[in-house]
Amino acid sequence: MKHILVKDLYRKTEEYADKQVTVGGWIRTVRSSKTFGFIELNDGSFFKNVQIVFEDTLENYQEISKLNVGSAIIVEGTIVKTPEAKQPFEIKASAITVEGTSTPDYPLQKKRHSFEFLRTIAHLRPRTNTFSAVFRVRSLAAYAIHQFFQERGFVYVHTPIITGSDAEGAGEMFRVSTLDLNNLPKDQDGKVDFSKDFFGRETNLTVSGQLSVETYAMAFRNVYTFGPTFRAENSNTARHAAEFWMIEPEMAFADLNDDMELAEEMLKYIIQFVMDNAPEEMEFFNNFIDQTLFERLVNIVNSDFGHITYTEAIELLKKVNHQFEYPVEWGSDLQTEHERYLTEKIFNKPVFVTDYPKDIKAFYMRQNDDGKTVAAMDLLVPGVGEIIGGSQREERLDVLENRIKELNMKEEDYWWYLDTRRYGGTKHAGFGLGFERAIMYMTGMSNIRDVISFPRTVKNAEF
Amino acid sequence: MKHILVKDLYRKTEEYADKQVTVGGWIRTVRSSKTFGFIELNDGSFFKNVQIVFEDTLENYQEISKLNVGSAIIVEGTIVKTPEAKQPFEIKASAITVEGTSTPDYPLQKKRHSFEFLRTIAHLRPRTNTFSAVFRVRSLAAYAIHQFFQERGFVYVHTPIITGSDAEGAGEMFRVSTLDLNNLPKDQDGKVDFSKDFFGRETNLTVSGQLSVETYAMAFRNVYTFGPTFRAENSNTARHAAEFWMIEPEMAFADLNDDMELAEEMLKYIIQFVMDNAPEEMEFFNNFIDQTLFERLVNIVNSDFGHITYTEAIELLKKVNHQFEYPVEWGSDLQTEHERYLTEKIFNKPVFVTDYPKDIKAFYMRQNDDGKTVAAMDLLVPGVGEIIGGSQREERLDVLENRIKELNMKEEDYWWYLDTRRYGGTKHAGFGLGFERAIMYMTGMSNIRDVISFPRTVKNAEF
Repeated sequence: MKHILVKDLYRKTEEYADKQVTVGGWIRTVRSSKTFGFIELNDGSFFKNVQIVFEDTLENYQEISKLNVGSAIIVEGTIVKTPEAKQPFEIKASAITVEGTSTPDYPLQKKRHSFEFLRTIAHLRPRTNTFSAVFRVRSLAAYAIHQFFQERGFVYVHTPIITGSDAEGAGEMFRVSTLDLNNLPKDQDGKVDFSKDFFGRETNLTVSGQLSVETYAMAFRNVYTFGPTFRAENSNTARHAAEFWMIEPEMAFADLNDDMELAEEMLKYIIQFVMDNAPEEMEFFNNFIDQTLFERLVNIVNSDFGHITYTEAIELLKKVNHQFEYPVEWGSDLQTEHERYLTEKIFNKPVFVTDYPKDIKAFYMRQNDDGKTVAAMDLLVPGVGEIIGGSQREERLDVLENRIKELNMKEEDYWWYLDTRRYGGTKHAGFGLGFERAIMYMTGMSNIRDVISFPRTVKNAEF
Repeated sequence: MKHILVKDLYRKTEEYADKQVTVGGWIRTVRSSKTFGFIELNDGSFFKNVQIVFEDTLENYQEISKLNVGSAIIVEGTIVKTPEAKQPFEIKASAITVEGTSTPDYPLQKKRHSFEFLRTIAHLRPRTNTFSAVFRVRSLAAYAIHQFFQERGFVYVHTPIITGSDAEGAGEMFRVSTLDLNNLPKDQDGKVDFSKDFFGRETNLTVSGQLSVETYAMAFRNVYTFGPTFRAENSNTARHAAEFWMIEPEMAFADLNDDMELAEEMLKYIIQFVMDNAPEEMEFFNNFIDQTLFERLVNIVNSDFGHITYTEAIELLKKVNHQFEYPVEWGSDLQTEHERYLTEKIFNKPVFVTDYPKDIKAFYMRQNDDGKTVAAMDLLVPGVGEIIGGSQREERLDVLENRIKELNMKEEDYWWYLDTRRYGGTKHAGFGLGFERAIMYMTGMSNIRDVISFPRTVKNAEF
């Protein structure tokens, strides 16, 4: 008989009441007396378990009673509504088949495990409540992002992961190579000869798809990337991973205001989608991980985000009666403490800070008429600080070329990027959202290692 | 005034008739006489251009008349229905603003360009009809895949790109490293000391997410990955790229029949979705790229896929009156010519070939009771041959361990993979679909370089 998913049993209990069903899943707990027992079974389709009642009329009653936590079983039985009990229904088993046993040393015995410990069994942790919730939310959020952009006609572009240029200029990179390290080809000067490498040149893992996707915005108008990006930063913090996913939309014929509008709409959309589609998981997070979660998320969905320029923000922060660790100074980047003060104390809602000094922002951002600032925006949210960073891009060929020279970058590395300004360049803008940071924000999980299936960090690439 | 997308003008022409609109886009052609002119404008939102009529009443009439192909403009004007003409409507311009000029040496002048040439300007080619169609279809197909799996409750898992094991055993890999190649750390034996590398060990780019995602199937029951994978194969063919995207679903409590059912449903779903959502693009492909396309795709959507075992297929192929280049022999892998003969001549529809000899298939495939074959399946489709490969997985710990030993693989590399068989293992199955191969199949494009935005192949990582 075809298995029924536990999710369907919960969502359509009336329909299944008193019916005969078959479910397959994994035992979370089993308790039994001489004549009857209870199993909490999770089948992976739903956050909650289903309770199985079994009696000694089963011919394998003894075997079932002694099953270890983690065992996989298939249960045939009848759905019995239990209006008096904690759970709305249970399954009265008429037959239970053992699909795969477990052992007494199964690491996920019913007790509290630290997140640190669970990281060492990353292949098993999605079987726990917390990580089942995290990774279902992650999946739904990814889908929400695609749905948001596709509904608006944005074209999804798979920008390259292996990049031939180190032109993205956003941090340290990982080299990709097939050269035999114990027998490296050398050129006449004794340097490694990358012309012998797989791609005939030195290649790295991408740190951003933005420059590539800009070229597609000049064809499709509205586009986005959503893929893995990499930073070889030696930062062993709770917020840094060497491998993470990023969403980068880009719009032609759009300015900084359009950009902020899109970011605000997108963030609200993802949050609402996850709240609507994973209510049990979100309630779990709100109860057990971060009790301010709902308040925070509802505040985001319901507020009109604030707007302030960097220069105004600096003036405000200078005036407040608060001792910051880092000095507040025009020309320096805002630190997390400054960002959080702005969004939590001054605005008490998400706020866009715009028009940063050009010297602390990337070369491709559009210069404002003051000659000192660029049309950049960072979105700051309560509890975190920056969650999205974007800008209008410099579409004026001469201004962009000057900036590349000023920064001593190699213009020849950017021939194709500059072409988009030579041939029908338009005003355009985009932003980047770090996917894991968004998941942390939506779940209350505080370590990036706990929202990535198999995290890659300094000195760690296990599994 | 806010821009109207050309797609909306085509889809809701009645609604916009005689209305004042603003559109922004890029000039595909411009023709003009002394008193009036026509512009074919494409705004990226839609495959088709919109025709702009402009007259010498415009104060910048001369400037507009002389614009080069590729220029970006913003047009204000009125929608005029043209029931007599080729196109259903045009825009009578009341004002045209130049957003970004182009030059006479713009590489995409109105003439036929070879695909080879267009690969050298991969940053501009999405502005052509062919590549605009390819990359919109690619985007829609990606979305269709997410929609298909999410509607069925499958959890999307981002399996790692950087992998610490070379345990996937599916071909040559790219090394990922931050070691300084001109100053490599060595151990006592003079070998490269990877403990000094970023991850403290040797790491590579993944060739498949399957082993990782299997662990998630044991938690969520139904899961899928969809991400980039890498092969450092020195194959300079029209069907091989070093970087490509792959879809890999995995289902617990599922056997080979469930697996084939899912593959058939998925393939039909993607094709139908793209035909429904990109009718203009698909018609273009059918007219200009491959005139058998619609016939082929409709045949897939409407047929019940065939089923045959490898052993039966060998017997059939031996009997047919056809001279194959490669011998037909039990124990050898089917060559493309064999596959195509089976699906095109014998079945004339897609066909699953199952139960291949174990020695030509991967270690993780489930052994059949005959001791010689495994519960594998390849889906063959007319025009191509194999497009999907999958199997039921070996869930029996002892059988799997024996196979690992037989093949002289290192059991310790698989501790976490084997754990899924130790703790509540279940019957399970999955498959892999190469995304680019699917796009080639759905568009008729014959070179994989022409369905990847910036392709990475042997000796080529430009852009």
